[in-house]
Amino acid sequence: MTSSASNLLNPVAGPVELTRQLCNIASVSGDERGIADAVEAVLRDHAPHLTVTRDGDTLIARTELGRDRRVALAGHLDTVPINENLPVRNETDPETGDAVIWGRGTVDMKAGVAVQLALAVELTQPAVDLTWIWYDHEEVASELSGLGRAMRNHPELFGADFAILGEPSNGTIEGGCNGTLRARVTMRGKRAHSARSWMGENAIHRAGALLAKLDVFTPERITVDGLEYREGLNAVRIEGGVAGNVIPDHVSFDVNYRFAPSRSAEEAIAYVREFFAGADEVEIVDLAAGARPGLDDPLAQGFVAAVGETPTAKLGWTDVARFSALGIPAVNFGPGNPLLAHADDERVPIRQIEASMRSLRDWLTATS
Amino acid sequence: MTSSASNLLNPVAGPVELTRQLCNIASVSGDERGIADAVEAVLRDHAPHLTVTRDGDTLIARTELGRDRRVALAGHLDTVPINENLPVRNETDPETGDAVIWGRGTVDMKAGVAVQLALAVELTQPAVDLTWIWYDHEEVASELSGLGRAMRNHPELFGADFAILGEPSNGTIEGGCNGTLRARVTMRGKRAHSARSWMGENAIHRAGALLAKLDVFTPERITVDGLEYREGLNAVRIEGGVAGNVIPDHVSFDVNYRFAPSRSAEEAIAYVREFFAGADEVEIVDLAAGARPGLDDPLAQGFVAAVGETPTAKLGWTDVARFSALGIPAVNFGPGNPLLAHADDERVPIRQIEASMRSLRDWLTATS
Repeated sequence: MTSSASNLLNPVAGPVELTRQLCNIASVSGDERGIADAVEAVLRDHAPHLTVTRDGDTLIARTELGRDRRVALAGHLDTVPINENLPVRNETDPETGDAVIWGRGTVDMKAGVAVQLALAVELTQPAVDLTWIWYDHEEVASELSGLGRAMRNHPELFGADFAILGEPSNGTIEGGCNGTLRARVTMRGKRAHSARSWMGENAIHRAGALLAKLDVFTPERITVDGLEYREGLNAVRIEGGVAGNVIPDHVSFDVNYRFAPSRSAEEAIAYVREFFAGADEVEIVDLAAGARPGLDDPLAQGFVAAVGETPTAKLGWTDVARFSALGIPAVNFGPGNPLLAHADDERVPIRQIEASMRSLRDWLTATS
Repeated sequence: MTSSASNLLNPVAGPVELTRQLCNIASVSGDERGIADAVEAVLRDHAPHLTVTRDGDTLIARTELGRDRRVALAGHLDTVPINENLPVRNETDPETGDAVIWGRGTVDMKAGVAVQLALAVELTQPAVDLTWIWYDHEEVASELSGLGRAMRNHPELFGADFAILGEPSNGTIEGGCNGTLRARVTMRGKRAHSARSWMGENAIHRAGALLAKLDVFTPERITVDGLEYREGLNAVRIEGGVAGNVIPDHVSFDVNYRFAPSRSAEEAIAYVREFFAGADEVEIVDLAAGARPGLDDPLAQGFVAAVGETPTAKLGWTDVARFSALGIPAVNFGPGNPLLAHADDERVPIRQIEASMRSLRDWLTATS
């Protein structure tokens, strides 16, 4: 940590200004050292009530008040690549008229981190023990995740009764997440010259029935802990053929199955294998289980009441699944429209930053 | 022409020995100058009754006897690349027990050229006028064809009532040829994140119905001038998709339609457009019309009688279609199994060379 790093962030300026400051520290995945240094400096200088552990560019900061229950709050420090959208600037949203902060990272997810960091400094006597986690390498391949690495290196720091991930959710609670599975479906045939096509068997033609089945299929909607999860089953890529005058003996298509968190990984595999029972081969290429929302817990119900809006299901896979895998119910809650994540014109409404701050503060100080 | 070229080929040694000599002059497409020189030397030295024209490495040699009718006989001089299969050698066919000449070019189509060249020298007083054509660049892209070039440069030399192409046909008559058409069929959709697939439209799924239609489709068998042509309609390549988490907005598949010579090129296009009427786009990529066998002509019937075997339909596209495009009925007739063309172990039965020589001689001397 350099001594100048402490000057980059000022937590007492409030979460809106802190959002601007966090965004303007460029922190594309793999380049999080500067921002992790700055956050660590804030904790050392302004939060003596927290016990801080650093693992690479991930920081874990805990209260140790001996409360009955503990809540973990986590956010990633990295962004997708910058594209002429830094430094951030103040704008009026062209669609909603809201005052917004515009630029890379505003939505995904520096505003969420700003709310967390401001509260980490402010809440010296929360009603529950708190574990704040800011981590690196979220926007890249799953195996690089700083959260996953820190969980493996320091499992003793991650015990909690409930977890909140600060991913953008328009300041509402998006519970759990769908799982995701990718499979490669293959049909085989027999090569022949296309002038004598009856000597062969056309693999591409054989795939037609399965693709037509997908075309008319209506994926399920499944209610889990009160939230409705909408599934999806889609071919996302296809490739086959040998040459312009050869009957193809091979075609493969990749399928992405987004499945409700009530299904286990094994059940998702069985579902896909049964759907494509007519295929010659179904290879599971990638698999990440979903996460139940866990909103039946009284602790979570207090949070729902503090936010004051009806929770909805999170459809995309997020790191809540990493908490779920540790047995910790987890939800997404943060300012910003998730549909603008990664967009070059991402922008976060100032009122959502302030409202998220208030809801979290109310709940974390009132929970008993 | 070099003076030594005349020593490479000896037409009076008969077509079997001449096959060996022709094969052993390496003549992969683009490298036909040496063999064209050798053939030209034979004509100058042994066939003063023929009028010879050279166009690049193509030779046209005509009788000018004032006969009522004229037959064209053509063969290409080039081969596909050599693969440790020259010089040729004498073998016994492992499957049939026949005495064969083994090596590159034996089937496709030096044996056919040998029969033609031997007869060109021998038949000083044929019953019909004859046009002998030996040409370059058959085994490569159609636009390089020496036959096509010579037809454009010297149309006055190509008039004929019937044409015989010496392509391998096991010494039987394979009449005409199917046409071939390639089309690119495209389906479109709308991109969306695969976690929210209902926001998009899956182009790959939309292709399913058309591929399934191909899978259950039975192509037609069509009788033309007494020969049955079997059609084929096949997807030969498919490609689509954006990324593993994106609903694809585009898929294209290439279709090869092999169509009977009773259909014109325009009819073949209409057939494909109607079959794929459900597609968003059908682009015709490549098209070559077929050729009717023309076996209803009395001249052709005399040839059928001389060969003594029932003619069959040629399925693959060959240069007979170039004669057909000039209004000249054309058939394939040559020694060698067409299924061995381009095979590294191509080999021609000696008895087929001799039988082809006899049939052609009988007919060309007896036709009135």
